[in-house]
Amino acid sequence: MNYPVIVEVTLREGIADPEGATIERALPALGFTGVTNVRAGKSFRLDIEANDEAAALLKATAMAERLLSNPVIENAVARSAKVVS
Amino acid sequence: MNYPVIVEVTLREGIADPEGATIERALPALGFTGVTNVRAGKSFRLDIEANDEAAALLKATAMAERLLSNPVIENAVARSAKVVS
Repeated sequence: MNYPVIVEVTLREGIADPEGATIERALPALGFTGVTNVRAGKSFRLDIEANDEAAALLKATAMAERLLSNPVIENAVARSAKVVS
Repeated sequence: MNYPVIVEVTLREGIADPEGATIERALPALGFTGVTNVRAGKSFRLDIEANDEAAALLKATAMAERLLSNPVIENAVARSAKVVS
């Protein structure tokens, strides 16, 4: 069966995030105030062929660490795309 | 109060996704088979100052459409960072 999975890749704490900082500086000029701690990341949606959801998530986590993220500076979390509507 | 919010930006259906296609082609060489429909996107985490969570999500959605995404080719969804553990 195919399980839809979302892999979210975020920068580890303490790693500089120039993209997030730039967004944060741009927001007040557009009229959005009170927004802090902006962090930019990546997300991937994929369908994984597996026997059950746990196996699909395990496979997604392994893939996230091998190909989708740089574990030195990034965290990767895999979750089912069904749980979040 | 500050509400942590995640904004997820994904390409609209039908829009070509060369990054996702490249990942999909690279996976078998790393030993990951049975993965299809890979779509690459962006995610942003931010803290929003608001009176309640609904107001924070409304503000995040407006921001997502003005600054974080290109509504012509991308969908943006804002959700509370608390709901998903």
